[in-house]
Amino acid sequence: MPDFSIGVDLGGTNLRIGAVTPDGKLLEKISVSTKISLGADHVVNEMCDAILRLTSQYKNGRKLLGAGIGIPGMVDLENGTVCKSANLPGWSDYPVRQEIERRLGAPIILENDANVHAVGEKWLGAARDVDNMAMFTLGTGIGGCIILDGKIFHGMTGMAGEFGHVTIEPEGVPCGCGNRGCAERYASASAVVRMVREMIDCGQAPELAKAASADPEFSAKSVYNLAMQGDPAAREIFHRFGRALGILLAGMVNVLNLEMYVIGGGVASAWDAFAPTMFQEMRERSPIYFSSDPENPKNKQGTKSRKPRLTVVTRAVLGSDAGLYGGARLTHFPA
Amino acid sequence: MPDFSIGVDLGGTNLRIGAVTPDGKLLEKISVSTKISLGADHVVNEMCDAILRLTSQYKNGRKLLGAGIGIPGMVDLENGTVCKSANLPGWSDYPVRQEIERRLGAPIILENDANVHAVGEKWLGAARDVDNMAMFTLGTGIGGCIILDGKIFHGMTGMAGEFGHVTIEPEGVPCGCGNRGCAERYASASAVVRMVREMIDCGQAPELAKAASADPEFSAKSVYNLAMQGDPAAREIFHRFGRALGILLAGMVNVLNLEMYVIGGGVASAWDAFAPTMFQEMRERSPIYFSSDPENPKNKQGTKSRKPRLTVVTRAVLGSDAGLYGGARLTHFPA
Repeated sequence: MPDFSIGVDLGGTNLRIGAVTPDGKLLEKISVSTKISLGADHVVNEMCDAILRLTSQYKNGRKLLGAGIGIPGMVDLENGTVCKSANLPGWSDYPVRQEIERRLGAPIILENDANVHAVGEKWLGAARDVDNMAMFTLGTGIGGCIILDGKIFHGMTGMAGEFGHVTIEPEGVPCGCGNRGCAERYASASAVVRMVREMIDCGQAPELAKAASADPEFSAKSVYNLAMQGDPAAREIFHRFGRALGILLAGMVNVLNLEMYVIGGGVASAWDAFAPTMFQEMRERSPIYFSSDPENPKNKQGTKSRKPRLTVVTRAVLGSDAGLYGGARLTHFPA
Repeated sequence: MPDFSIGVDLGGTNLRIGAVTPDGKLLEKISVSTKISLGADHVVNEMCDAILRLTSQYKNGRKLLGAGIGIPGMVDLENGTVCKSANLPGWSDYPVRQEIERRLGAPIILENDANVHAVGEKWLGAARDVDNMAMFTLGTGIGGCIILDGKIFHGMTGMAGEFGHVTIEPEGVPCGCGNRGCAERYASASAVVRMVREMIDCGQAPELAKAASADPEFSAKSVYNLAMQGDPAAREIFHRFGRALGILLAGMVNVLNLEMYVIGGGVASAWDAFAPTMFQEMRERSPIYFSSDPENPKNKQGTKSRKPRLTVVTRAVLGSDAGLYGGARLTHFPA
């Protein structure tokens, strides 16, 4: 019986927990509803109860190596606390790691959720064969992570990889961060919803207006479906989305020159609608990408002495399990 | 008598060479004119002759540790050659490192010139007390380098740190790289000259027009002088310059979260004209910068348990000697 680790993905409404073996087998996953807005005390209780329920099934003869927890906010890695965050009211003074360690009796690692997803994709997903990659998690906003030499690159204060707030339109749409024209105002679920609303308000999107009023669960996914059915307004929205993401990625290829860029998160499912424009922008805007684009036949040949080095931009493959695998993986490298 | 290294800075018209001790004393520097357009054979001859002249004076009892050479183009680090480059016609098939090593009998390191400048500033200049920094070398274009844990971060193919071609105006001025709105089209010597020409053509810059026609050596420096004398058109040009650089830097702070960003190169002398706008943009566009801005009194305090972590953006201090120190420093870490 192998030992196991716990990976936890803490979302706004659901807490997902998985038990994972050291060689990457997901033994079981569970999902419990919680409200992070109710504060750290509440969520830590729910989390510990759920982890204990799950681990009690697997404890016979196995060792719990620890738990890695993805937090939707900025984490103080040194102290194992959550930094002040609008998403996590009341968390900043709570000793999250210490409290969970006390209750579980195993080492706990807190990490930003986008970083945890990237660690999952690096371990068992799209980036399993590369050591240097960046991940763009497209959800309500854009989460980001840079992995260098197989390890998360945190930067000075754990904030490295904040791709979502890179300016791509200097006079563009205002962002909650105080800037204008941030990438995530154009290439995220909330950006899709904003563009839909604006196009409907201007009378430019009759099909979208019809769909939005008929469907109480109208979302970015509905816009994707319409785009794939050929609706011009929905297609235009994903064209803008792809353009923004392409501008962002072209810049990151120029700055980071990594082997791989992985696009994940819920909105990555709209890949077919935005990726063609994204790749077109990258080819036009980054000579480094152009000269290492795997789709360019010139770059495939190479010579006897020199293998071509390609820049791969690809979809994540683990879906929402990336956070469970990534969290478990963090326990294999105790600080 | 201490040992010494040679640092070489290869420019378009001048070849600058310095002899530097292991503890960073510049024993002597010389400058010889050369034309890199005449090809590798010609330049390598001039370079070896000049290095041999310089080293012959210092060889009594001292050991030449090697030479580090900054090349204005992309370098194939593994093979010690220059990659195909518009600036360096005929260089790509020439075994530059091998030929110089043969003639000098000492280890040679080729490196991109912007990287060499950054190594100099890291060793003895503005960044001597930090291990993680990026340098922006403002000249005809924008050269860039990222240093992590005290070492150049090359990326997959040595192209990391190409800050000059990050898009900051998606529909902006076309760039030779094929993109539009690259940062270096707004924040470099050639950008200043372009903006002057455009403003003169529109009749918006009477003082600049007068100065440009009276002075055969009219340059970005002349525009800086006029800006500091209060000329509105010249001030507007450096306002646009600072805005572009601020947008670029804000993005890089969000992505890299480094301790220090050093602005060097000839056009950094115009600091007083562009820096106020640059800092303003950074504060407005990067919450990470805002929350670690050394000028913000809130960020200076810290608590007993937590020292404030500041993001420093500052001028380079070594001027044109950065390349000599940096080149010499490269010889201390043989591959």
